[in-house]
Amino acid sequence: MADLRTLFRPTSVAIIGASKAEGKVGNSILKNVINSGFKGDIYPINPKETEIAGLRCYQSISQVKAELAIIVIPTSGVLAAAEECGKNGVRSLIVITAGFKETGAAGAKLERELSEICNRYSMLLVGPNCLGVMDTRTPLDASFAPKFALPGDIAFISQSGALGSAILDWSVQRGLGFSKFISLGNKAGLDETDFIEYLAGDPDTKVIICYIESITGGQRFMDVAHAASKVKPIIVFKSGTSAAGARAASSHTGSLAGNDRVYETVFKQCNVMRVKKLDDLFSLAVTFTSQPLPRGNRVAILTNAGGPGIITTDNIETSELTMAQFSDRVTKALKAGLPETANIHNPVDVIGDARADRYAYAMEHILSDENVDSMLVLLTPQKVTQPDETARALVDIRSRHPEKPVLASFMGGELVAGAVDYLEKSGIATFPFPEPAVGALDGITRYANWRKRAEEGGEEILTPPPDRQRVAAVFEAVRKDARTNLIGSEAARVAEAYGIPAAPSVLARTAEDAVSAAEKMGYPVVLKLAAPKIQHKTDLGGVKLNIKCADDVRKNFDEIISTVRAKMPDAQISGVEVQKMMPPGREMIIGMSRDPQFGPMIMFGLGGIYVNLLKDVSFRMAYKLTRRQIEDMIKETKAYTLLRGFRGEAPADIDAIVDAIARIARLTLDFPEIAELDINPVFAYEKGLSALDVKIMLAPPKETGKEEVASGVTPGSAVAQ
Amino acid sequence: MADLRTLFRPTSVAIIGASKAEGKVGNSILKNVINSGFKGDIYPINPKETEIAGLRCYQSISQVKAELAIIVIPTSGVLAAAEECGKNGVRSLIVITAGFKETGAAGAKLERELSEICNRYSMLLVGPNCLGVMDTRTPLDASFAPKFALPGDIAFISQSGALGSAILDWSVQRGLGFSKFISLGNKAGLDETDFIEYLAGDPDTKVIICYIESITGGQRFMDVAHAASKVKPIIVFKSGTSAAGARAASSHTGSLAGNDRVYETVFKQCNVMRVKKLDDLFSLAVTFTSQPLPRGNRVAILTNAGGPGIITTDNIETSELTMAQFSDRVTKALKAGLPETANIHNPVDVIGDARADRYAYAMEHILSDENVDSMLVLLTPQKVTQPDETARALVDIRSRHPEKPVLASFMGGELVAGAVDYLEKSGIATFPFPEPAVGALDGITRYANWRKRAEEGGEEILTPPPDRQRVAAVFEAVRKDARTNLIGSEAARVAEAYGIPAAPSVLARTAEDAVSAAEKMGYPVVLKLAAPKIQHKTDLGGVKLNIKCADDVRKNFDEIISTVRAKMPDAQISGVEVQKMMPPGREMIIGMSRDPQFGPMIMFGLGGIYVNLLKDVSFRMAYKLTRRQIEDMIKETKAYTLLRGFRGEAPADIDAIVDAIARIARLTLDFPEIAELDINPVFAYEKGLSALDVKIMLAPPKETGKEEVASGVTPGSAVAQ
Repeated sequence: MADLRTLFRPTSVAIIGASKAEGKVGNSILKNVINSGFKGDIYPINPKETEIAGLRCYQSISQVKAELAIIVIPTSGVLAAAEECGKNGVRSLIVITAGFKETGAAGAKLERELSEICNRYSMLLVGPNCLGVMDTRTPLDASFAPKFALPGDIAFISQSGALGSAILDWSVQRGLGFSKFISLGNKAGLDETDFIEYLAGDPDTKVIICYIESITGGQRFMDVAHAASKVKPIIVFKSGTSAAGARAASSHTGSLAGNDRVYETVFKQCNVMRVKKLDDLFSLAVTFTSQPLPRGNRVAILTNAGGPGIITTDNIETSELTMAQFSDRVTKALKAGLPETANIHNPVDVIGDARADRYAYAMEHILSDENVDSMLVLLTPQKVTQPDETARALVDIRSRHPEKPVLASFMGGELVAGAVDYLEKSGIATFPFPEPAVGALDGITRYANWRKRAEEGGEEILTPPPDRQRVAAVFEAVRKDARTNLIGSEAARVAEAYGIPAAPSVLARTAEDAVSAAEKMGYPVVLKLAAPKIQHKTDLGGVKLNIKCADDVRKNFDEIISTVRAKMPDAQISGVEVQKMMPPGREMIIGMSRDPQFGPMIMFGLGGIYVNLLKDVSFRMAYKLTRRQIEDMIKETKAYTLLRGFRGEAPADIDAIVDAIARIARLTLDFPEIAELDINPVFAYEKGLSALDVKIMLAPPKETGKEEVASGVTPGSAVAQ
Repeated sequence: MADLRTLFRPTSVAIIGASKAEGKVGNSILKNVINSGFKGDIYPINPKETEIAGLRCYQSISQVKAELAIIVIPTSGVLAAAEECGKNGVRSLIVITAGFKETGAAGAKLERELSEICNRYSMLLVGPNCLGVMDTRTPLDASFAPKFALPGDIAFISQSGALGSAILDWSVQRGLGFSKFISLGNKAGLDETDFIEYLAGDPDTKVIICYIESITGGQRFMDVAHAASKVKPIIVFKSGTSAAGARAASSHTGSLAGNDRVYETVFKQCNVMRVKKLDDLFSLAVTFTSQPLPRGNRVAILTNAGGPGIITTDNIETSELTMAQFSDRVTKALKAGLPETANIHNPVDVIGDARADRYAYAMEHILSDENVDSMLVLLTPQKVTQPDETARALVDIRSRHPEKPVLASFMGGELVAGAVDYLEKSGIATFPFPEPAVGALDGITRYANWRKRAEEGGEEILTPPPDRQRVAAVFEAVRKDARTNLIGSEAARVAEAYGIPAAPSVLARTAEDAVSAAEKMGYPVVLKLAAPKIQHKTDLGGVKLNIKCADDVRKNFDEIISTVRAKMPDAQISGVEVQKMMPPGREMIIGMSRDPQFGPMIMFGLGGIYVNLLKDVSFRMAYKLTRRQIEDMIKETKAYTLLRGFRGEAPADIDAIVDAIARIARLTLDFPEIAELDINPVFAYEKGLSALDVKIMLAPPKETGKEEVASGVTPGSAVAQ
């Protein structure tokens, strides 16, 4: 892990390209460093000046001793300046200057050279093409953002400088504080993963929030995010979902797995919370910083009007939260102390004429109930309502129950403004309407649940172990044949080598070969044309089912060959595959598609011919896939309902499916040359399963070099976008 | 339609229960009427006072001539006061007083009496148990809300007084104006439908927004909302979705159709826009009042930063909107006038150093493009950005293109506050972040599209016409038999009478009857136990398939009877049904469940044994169901993909399905005694279809009286909640 101390809390800062000219970036940054209250040494560097903003200006970085240097000179001079920084002991470099990768090939080359210089001197690098960084505790504003962030507990990483800038401005108006702000720029050096890793251990940061457009070094991100999310919440807004359609799709799995699906799956697997609205990024973060984690899902609602209570209950029903059922003690107390027309069950309605004392009575009892994990207080300003006094009572009572999250939605404008302000300042998360309050409470509750069941990411021990050599031999033969698609019997052999029970399948070149294969495996059998380049074999008359004797094998063998020869005289035919006809089971699909950043993604769902119609599938990344995650994956589908025994059927062997998925995950991690894999259908039985039709496609040989290394080492060059 | 002039714009107002005591509701209302600037006569009525708030106070309503009376006296005196109002020529009554239906049976009785008094004198009634009404144009504040609404073009109907009160307070702070505000209360007289009908013709109202918890008089609501939504947008926030689970479900259709599904379906069918967040109710309404309706779906995005452009594009992809493709002329102009690094294609990025003039150049060209229907302008405050000047340029350019909606998201706080304020005042809808802007633009675009294809709600002419008498005869026989479930042959007869092709089915009491039925319809046949109270006939051994000769009919007949007799000696067995075995087709389901308020709701989707697993179904109300709506309904399902011809299959006869659905809609409207109907499967063929298993359940006799009258007349008593 990189030590980012010299970036966020340097003893000294040099600004290379500091300028006297008002409005220039080199002037803004110098002023921001000074005005932020930075207590270390500040060295403006500019050969044309002797003094800027009251500070002595230096000719060159060699004249000073700076831990952090910020470069704001034109692109052409950046490499030389970086080199000089390296020679003169600079530890961290922020390159504000643009004109690198974002401008095309020449810029990308320049950026690689910049990165190499920093590597050579072991200098940390932020940017190029970024806004800079801030640390409100140091304090240090090493950016040209228009406003220095207010101090707070949220660290904010942004891949868009402009968006970061807008949000900083907005946050100051809203009174929202940050511990650190980081503009990632082109990520030639440090990227989101490096910062998340560092921030996980940063005592000033309670929550990490990120705006990102792409992630590089996928498996390292998964390692880091998985570990960091056990320590503190990570909330991500990931844009660029509309790129989804771009990906080529030749298999079922490929066509059902878009690019955004990979990110969705990765975040889920690493307990990274994804929000779909920028606003939610902050409302959720604020709730995390102000509230303890709830011990469970049981929410109590307190209101002085029916409507808002109903709205809140509606929203809770579609969340992971549940409505708390009060203990007898509390129910009795509410009954004794509230008016007869009040509703004493959750949602508790103290009704329209409730003053602060009635609210206080109800709050005290509800919060003290051991059946209540969190409380949401709603208030509408009615005739005798006392918003300010109610707020004070809430803060007071809450101080005696600090272990439970308390959220409030005091609805209205001027009439509740003072109360809302007081609640926010006193550590109660407030929301203008009930729905976002439920959303935020749901968010922190989900995170708390994740944390409770946080698990190690270790791989399963597979018994019996897979036979790697046997698979390698099959692939070598396919390569020698200058093919990328495996024929069925080859794919079945690969599956078997990894302990996945495939229906026995043998390639027969002649009718007599077919007969002897059939006799060996036992009738009935299926005959299938073996021709790697022909897709729709059934439509061509290339598949014959339920063959029960040797004569029929011969007859059907000849028929397949002659039919196909007649229809496609030039087709390359390897022969006919003889497959044992398996008893029917519940039809599932297991598949894999590979992402260049994150590696293999496994798919599971309802199989059969309607896979693409029904789209009942779920996904997990193969990397560090655990048994529990596989179980979750299965449970997410309707296929699970079928497997458990639908309409009185006996349950199917779900353990066998979990095992098969774990084995496919291992296979696709072990062999990066597998580009796509589809088993459809898998027949699930009461005991065991059978992989009926295994399809494996290898990557074209030239592409194998591009594969992500499974060990977690990030390739040097940025491949994203 | 009720003329509500005397409610919203009376010449004179009496406040019965006006009070001198500060803090009393009778005091607040009087003050609100006075302070709202009401120009007519104001009469405080209170036998104990001679003067209140500087106005002469009267002993009784008989001493004055008031068009509108507001009653705020205790519950016990309300009926007498209402009677007196009626006698003295009051035209409209607002009953603020609570203590009616909401308190139980005695209150409900009181409320019915109140309603009868009003009917007797043809007095309009709002409430009881309400906050009152406001009209900002009259002006008149006839409520005890803490704030009088700002004037505006939005009419706001609220079933929750407290929520209405909170939102009025909030709206004043936000600068949001209303034409009218209506607190519905218990709806003993006027309800949401009456107000929507009136507001559709109200020149002061551009948009109608409603917070509702229940709708009474379902089919009248559908008539009114369907007509009103053609004139102006209606936006609804409906709470109480969590009641969904409460409904009993004995059929497929019943179990898939929750209570909220009915509302969802009704709103869709009437072009009522439903929002799921209170905030959206207002942001969408404001967009409607400030923007023209777009002529199409094509949006142009203009930004000065990549990130927000990506976010916006992501959101557009999941909406009904499309990204505009600029004309060659505009593309050339953008290329000529923008810097080389700018993105001249949609989303247009004028990049970070854009000043107002560059924004203006791009906006002018984009808005003038005939390929652009609406524009969304994004701005982040960067180094040289000019938010104020850009806002002014935008307003100026927009004034030359008033026919296109223009929305803006100037992100930030203080730096953009002035610009945002100016834009809002100048008729540009603004949003703090891009996502809600896309949501609002999507909303007005969907509404514009609906309006364009607005259609008459007339029923289809069915040829050949259904045979009502034949169905009535079947039901009479079932009733005589003291049953509610039809056996298969009866249900098939009902289907046939309405022109729905059902598989021929005959009830046989003896084996010989069965043989002669089979010979008549032709082999193969299916034999099914006929026993109305036995549900799972297959599991009992009560179903025999694919019977091909007379001997097998005899053998299987006897086997069914003896097996069932052995297992269930006391079962009431009507005989065995002989059904023609139909060739397999694509399996669909058509069903109906009945809602007490809105009548029959029709379901269509993928059929077969996995209906409840796959849940691939869509819904429409039978009432005024048109051919086009049925087509839409089919297109919403995955079953449609299957019907069109999936994986190379020939398309199925979709016209036949449309016809069958129209006939089932008619059947269930004609016979309110049909409680549930399920046809599963329907086999769809290349030509025609066959209803395989028709299940019809009648309502228990005592319940028939409760049925909604199909003519659209609302029952007198409020049945909701």
